[in-house]
Amino acid sequence: MHKTLWDHRYAQRTQRMSGSTIRELLKLTEQPDIISFGGGLPSPDVFPLERVKQASELVLKTQAAYVLQYGTTEGYVPLRKMLAEFACRFGVDITIDNVLITSGSQQALDLLGKILINPGDRILVEDPTYLGALQAWNAYGAEYVPVPSDEEGIDPGALEAAMRCGAKFLYLIPTFQNPTGKTLSEERRKKIIQLSDHYGIPIIEDDPYGQLRFEGETVSPIMALDGAARDDCAGCYNGNVIYLSTFSKIMAPGLRLAWVIAPPEIIRKMVMAKQGIDLNTSTFNQALAYEVGRDGFIDQHIQLIRKVYKERRDVMLEALTEFMPQGVSWTHPQGGLFLWATCPEKINTESLLKVAVARKVAFVPGTSFFATGGGYNTMRLNFSFCVPEKIITGISRLGEAIKESL
Amino acid sequence: MHKTLWDHRYAQRTQRMSGSTIRELLKLTEQPDIISFGGGLPSPDVFPLERVKQASELVLKTQAAYVLQYGTTEGYVPLRKMLAEFACRFGVDITIDNVLITSGSQQALDLLGKILINPGDRILVEDPTYLGALQAWNAYGAEYVPVPSDEEGIDPGALEAAMRCGAKFLYLIPTFQNPTGKTLSEERRKKIIQLSDHYGIPIIEDDPYGQLRFEGETVSPIMALDGAARDDCAGCYNGNVIYLSTFSKIMAPGLRLAWVIAPPEIIRKMVMAKQGIDLNTSTFNQALAYEVGRDGFIDQHIQLIRKVYKERRDVMLEALTEFMPQGVSWTHPQGGLFLWATCPEKINTESLLKVAVARKVAFVPGTSFFATGGGYNTMRLNFSFCVPEKIITGISRLGEAIKESL
Repeated sequence: MHKTLWDHRYAQRTQRMSGSTIRELLKLTEQPDIISFGGGLPSPDVFPLERVKQASELVLKTQAAYVLQYGTTEGYVPLRKMLAEFACRFGVDITIDNVLITSGSQQALDLLGKILINPGDRILVEDPTYLGALQAWNAYGAEYVPVPSDEEGIDPGALEAAMRCGAKFLYLIPTFQNPTGKTLSEERRKKIIQLSDHYGIPIIEDDPYGQLRFEGETVSPIMALDGAARDDCAGCYNGNVIYLSTFSKIMAPGLRLAWVIAPPEIIRKMVMAKQGIDLNTSTFNQALAYEVGRDGFIDQHIQLIRKVYKERRDVMLEALTEFMPQGVSWTHPQGGLFLWATCPEKINTESLLKVAVARKVAFVPGTSFFATGGGYNTMRLNFSFCVPEKIITGISRLGEAIKESL
Repeated sequence: MHKTLWDHRYAQRTQRMSGSTIRELLKLTEQPDIISFGGGLPSPDVFPLERVKQASELVLKTQAAYVLQYGTTEGYVPLRKMLAEFACRFGVDITIDNVLITSGSQQALDLLGKILINPGDRILVEDPTYLGALQAWNAYGAEYVPVPSDEEGIDPGALEAAMRCGAKFLYLIPTFQNPTGKTLSEERRKKIIQLSDHYGIPIIEDDPYGQLRFEGETVSPIMALDGAARDDCAGCYNGNVIYLSTFSKIMAPGLRLAWVIAPPEIIRKMVMAKQGIDLNTSTFNQALAYEVGRDGFIDQHIQLIRKVYKERRDVMLEALTEFMPQGVSWTHPQGGLFLWATCPEKINTESLLKVAVARKVAFVPGTSFFATGGGYNTMRLNFSFCVPEKIITGISRLGEAIKESL
């Protein structure tokens, strides 16, 4: 194909962009004979379909002219109110001025990159961490300082050492982490708030899965622990944590709806940035989500999701025990969508993926989640998407693929 | 309110961001007693509501698991095919590989800024131009070279002089321009393609309104004129123009759906960037738009929109003639949503806006659309949103406000 005038005109940052392994994997899941533990897909079995149908009818019957029109950048007011109330349960005062609706959490990550990151800024991240955050922030020239974790999540000693070298902010997925499924203990969360305060390094808390706990005790979001220590702004959160969550895992990702809870000044800056990137999130989808979620439905529905995902996690854990060869280990997440497996050192999971796909099973090689490399023998396994029988078949195939590669 | 740790941590680009006058004006339109010619709002009277209702029912009945799930970044294949076919009418070969679905055209502008603009890059723009483009690209450190226009649109002589000084690309809204309502003649379009080729400066053609012609002869999109000259890539457009259009003006803005037609390599780069900014556009909304638009419905519907907007434009033109004091002039657009009025030099339209709002009528002061200042006595008037009686009342109020300010 001939060259166009565009060919030498890409921005420098375009050279730092790369396609997402996860997105490429999503394409594999479109082949019906592959069992994919790859994407972070929720199960369509727990989409609240009847409720979405009713909501869609209602919204188009009663508010069509409003929901099909442009809307305000901040988001649909009843939805923002609902989310503020939802967050107040954590024991921290949240008002509508703390809430921004975004077109998925990925947009929130992009917006935060846009308002916060100068080229060369250092971001403290877990190691491994969510690759979508890396992808969003690479475009802004971020540099990453990976902080090691153990079974309880990020290690406060290592974090303090990293904080002493300075950073723009700390990015954490503290609950049922993506990719590892690990949860940061409440003790460590409190310690991290102290460190954040002491070294002046604020925190972005990404919490897409926090509601999906199957067992064990609830741990407060870091924002709530931080907010509890700052009750000087009557009725409004104005602390050092920016909190992200999403409807993708508790309702349906196809609506592309998420939200940010942050100090009002951060929300204002994000709103300005959002005007330049998509004007507003679909009012129709926002009104749908409000009508679906309201009157306590979302809480009932979360119970259902927990039940279904717990069963699938249990099935996957059992299948792993049954089919994995000696030397493979994995995490035991108390909630969420993912677990994390570590193969014997001989195995490179990127090579393994080819063997696995030939056997009609897929996963995400762990390397993708390490900001500065590492984890070549690890992998992320999603247990939410496949039905139990497929999980068993898929893990058995994966076991064979690993044995073949040993 | 106390300072948080975020307060000194904003990126440099955040200092270049400012709220959009248009978005702030949208808030005014929420007061029911204000007649607003401000926002670029389509009329809710021409939202295809019955068809959206049917489409929503159908999609949730037949494809729920698919449309409520994550989707591919490129967009919903049937919709991309429909848009490729739609574009082929212009007489240029377009395939699905030329098409990307975006979350509104604003997102396309942001994506293009992301993949193309380095800080300090010069962009050639009409003077005035669409302020949303300026807002999107300010965040990437763009600098603007405004090129003067006359009644036929951008002036080729002035454009050539500007091109000789170098630029990353030329940005044009050639048909029923926002804000002026002017249309670039076919002769000039051909001349501009020659200049673009000669000086090696490619073109972004923003065409949200091209379908909404009320009178006069259709003028081909610049992409089509460029594509006609390059038939060496069988079946696929690979020229020097990136073309943007949107469902916001021919269906409903609340769906937040638009599309880009570009060389495949540009589409691939935009897809990579889009993965980092919102993963994908709502599959539900894309499937809705496909079901609404298919089988020729969109063409019938466009006929209706043209009829309604033509009437409103005519009413506004008549009202202007009736109510404007001596010395006010305005454009006579052959389509689109806007006309452009110029007041006597004594009037500053930013000050006038306050007087006008006191009289319960609003518009956008022209200055917002000038990349490097100017047009203090101009204003953009939208004629699509208000019903004819309101247009008459509003223009009469505006006439009074101008008289008061003279």
